[in-house]
Amino acid sequence: MNLEARIARLEALEAIQRLKHRYLNACDLKQVESIRDCFAEGEILIDYGPIGTFRDRDSFVAVYRELACQPRVIDLHHGANPEIYLLGEDGDEAVGRWALCYCNLDAETGATRKLGGFYQDRYRRVDGQWRIVATAFRGHFETSGASLQHTP
Amino acid sequence: MNLEARIARLEALEAIQRLKHRYLNACDLKQVESIRDCFAEGEILIDYGPIGTFRDRDSFVAVYRELACQPRVIDLHHGANPEIYLLGEDGDEAVGRWALCYCNLDAETGATRKLGGFYQDRYRRVDGQWRIVATAFRGHFETSGASLQHTP
Amino acid sequence: MNLEARIARLEALEAIQRLKHRYLNACDLKQVESIRDCFAEGEILIDYGPIGTFRDRDSFVAVYRELACQPRVIDLHHGANPEIYLLGEDGDEAVGRWALCYCNLDAETGATRKLGGFYQDRYRRVDGQWRIVATAFRGHFETSGASLQHTP
Repeated sequence: MNLEARIARLEALEAIQRLKHRYLNACDLKQVESIRDCFAEGEILIDYGPIGTFRDRDSFVAVYRELACQPRVIDLHHGANPEIYLLGEDGDEAVGRWALCYCNLDAETGATRKLGGFYQDRYRRVDGQWRIVATAFRGHFETSGASLQHTP
Repeated sequence: MNLEARIARLEALEAIQRLKHRYLNACDLKQVESIRDCFAEGEILIDYGPIGTFRDRDSFVAVYRELACQPRVIDLHHGANPEIYLLGEDGDEAVGRWALCYCNLDAETGATRKLGGFYQDRYRRVDGQWRIVATAFRGHFETSGASLQHTP
Repeated sequence: MNLEARIARLEALEAIQRLKHRYLNACDLKQVESIRDCFAEGEILIDYGPIGTFRDRDSFVAVYRELACQPRVIDLHHGANPEIYLLGEDGDEAVGRWALCYCNLDAETGATRKLGGFYQDRYRRVDGQWRIVATAFRGHFETSGASLQHTP
């Protein structure tokens, strides 16, 4: 690869990581429009196991809004250990594996839940912007508990 | 941007992430001089909510020393999901958002506390070194518990 | 440094982070051959404290297999706060410090364990591939508990 292509590859890896970070942060901050914007328009695949499988971003956003946009739902979505690979010559497609540590607090009861697992993602650059075009999450670690005290 | 500017941008993003990582690791290792060195000299803003608001690094380090530099205080400060943006043309200023997973163990009682939230940071390059010039942390997830056994 | 050397440095940092991420993910997924492949052949040093000290990758993999490759062992190994430094002029050696958040669930009893600490690593590029040639882990935070419910 020439220097320009090597720089473009590093820029793409950085942009894809930031895209996923923006998605995960938006999930905690309940920034619904930001969540929607992380996915491509048109047909995509979001396979979140027991939460559901969605073929377009609006269907997923509707379910996210129903499940998460309540004051009692307090979430942490922390990505870890990303492994991103660009595909092909032009570098407009990529795949990635991420670990996730998800923690949920029910602000009414103090009940807690922790879920660990892996995302398998596919990304595409459309009009210069990287978007998620496929994502599947599988959990392999789940525990529940009760907080002695909690905020709020 | 020309190639040199594109490389410089990637280098700056890398340096800023490493700066924050060094800060968070130093907080766990109680490396007080390393913590101080992560912030710029002179007037800065450290807004850590209930812990306090500080206008210079020495004031913060004094409070950190009092709160954390005790054998019973065992901390984890793990950064997640960084989103860093360089500002302006010369690229000597940047802003960033980070998620934090903070865990505390009281080594005397076994009491535990977990805090999740977000940093909003501002960074500046001074004499070739990136430093934190403003940082605000807001928690939105907090739980407490008790360890059945703990070390030490 | 000229532009090519600056790009090569960023590529090396990216490759080393991905190597460690691949290692940590493989530990959770129990991908034994992938774990082995993260370490260099020949004499290396793996110092995992109470788990043992190992002078070659096969010795470590044998112990890993015995400890982790059981259905009741469910693990999360999440790296955080990497600080990687390339050494020397040719850039074929590097050192790194990482924080780790490790969580274990005993799927038979629901017992949980959490361990936080630091890796100090040394990496070497051999035939174009970065490998771990030395790693030491020291925990400073450890708690245990019980899940009210767990999966599986």
